[in-house]
Amino acid sequence: MREIFQQELAQVQGGLVNIANHVQSAMTRALASFAHSDVAVADEVIGDDLKIDEQTAQLDDLTLEILLMQAPVANDLRFIVSTMRMSGSLERMGDLAAHIAQLARMRYPEESGASQVRQHLLEMGALDVAQAERLVRLFETEEPRLIDEIVAADDEIDAKHKQVLDTLGELEQDGNQEASPTQVVDATLANRYLERFSDHAVSIAKRIRYQQEGTEQEA
Amino acid sequence: MREIFQQELAQVQGGLVNIANHVQSAMTRALASFAHSDVAVADEVIGDDLKIDEQTAQLDDLTLEILLMQAPVANDLRFIVSTMRMSGSLERMGDLAAHIAQLARMRYPEESGASQVRQHLLEMGALDVAQAERLVRLFETEEPRLIDEIVAADDEIDAKHKQVLDTLGELEQDGNQEASPTQVVDATLANRYLERFSDHAVSIAKRIRYQQEGTEQEA
Repeated sequence: MREIFQQELAQVQGGLVNIANHVQSAMTRALASFAHSDVAVADEVIGDDLKIDEQTAQLDDLTLEILLMQAPVANDLRFIVSTMRMSGSLERMGDLAAHIAQLARMRYPEESGASQVRQHLLEMGALDVAQAERLVRLFETEEPRLIDEIVAADDEIDAKHKQVLDTLGELEQDGNQEASPTQVVDATLANRYLERFSDHAVSIAKRIRYQQEGTEQEA
Repeated sequence: MREIFQQELAQVQGGLVNIANHVQSAMTRALASFAHSDVAVADEVIGDDLKIDEQTAQLDDLTLEILLMQAPVANDLRFIVSTMRMSGSLERMGDLAAHIAQLARMRYPEESGASQVRQHLLEMGALDVAQAERLVRLFETEEPRLIDEIVAADDEIDAKHKQVLDTLGELEQDGNQEASPTQVVDATLANRYLERFSDHAVSIAKRIRYQQEGTEQEA
């Protein structure tokens, strides 16, 4: 019984690593589709989002089964409860990557997003990909240093998010740099999606910290 | 022991009703601040969001404590697990109401959002308030009819969301109906927030349906 339980816990951890890897790959490719107006890649990302949804649903089933069958206590229970909450964040991160791909797809063959902010959006996206990479390693190693890095990178992303909003707001004052309403809409949405992606990474990182603190208190 | 447990479960249910009531009140007032550019009301909503965050954190603590101390099984476990997941949705709904209030506050004394879509946004908001009211009653009564109503109303909100996006996209083709980039940004964000609010209501409704189906299978 105990041995099966340890196997199941390892399976949960493996599930988290696996989903985070898929999320990282989805955001990497979503950005490529956004940068190069590549519809084939965009469609791939949108299709793969269903797989991420399935994987998180399977992880949810597994954690519920563990709760029902094994009635875990202390650290194990805390890990299972954290996982139930983190899976929702991972699923949303996959959705947000797909949303970026949808923006690229919708505007094809034109570029999506006002040209005045596209470079900033791509930089935010690169920071988001790095956040997802940190999550993969965090699920693998639980290194506290990675939690600090995720929180710090989020500040950088928030600053860029604000800069994009400011730039969009200033467009009207500069007749030479016009953008169409559609380009403003797309840039506003991409900016929002990229900011939220990192918020979810922070939420996951903080849950792992909380879990570690609980473990320390008991140790 | 058993009696205390039943008391705790009733406390969880009361917590859900209470938070849903606060979310409903927050969105009602957020819309008023958005409709009338009322900064005092907007500030109230933004301040109250911290209370909603606290209430959901307290509910999370309570459900975790019940898991740790009572090791519930079957229906009770399913109810606790659902609650852990629904509290996240309620917290986000509070955030989204506060975001609407922030849009009103940021543009004061001007109106927030392109005038061409403000009426649609306010209609979406009224549908969102009705969604929150249904959630209050759903937590109180668990009536399946309310779940169907929430899913149907979400379709209506999605249709309006699409209509706002289309209208914003068409602005450029009609020189008489110009909107500034800032007004387009605000309308895009409000549209997104109002759509997401209802998505969370649907997510909660489906969790309750899932929980009820599990209960039926065991009965």
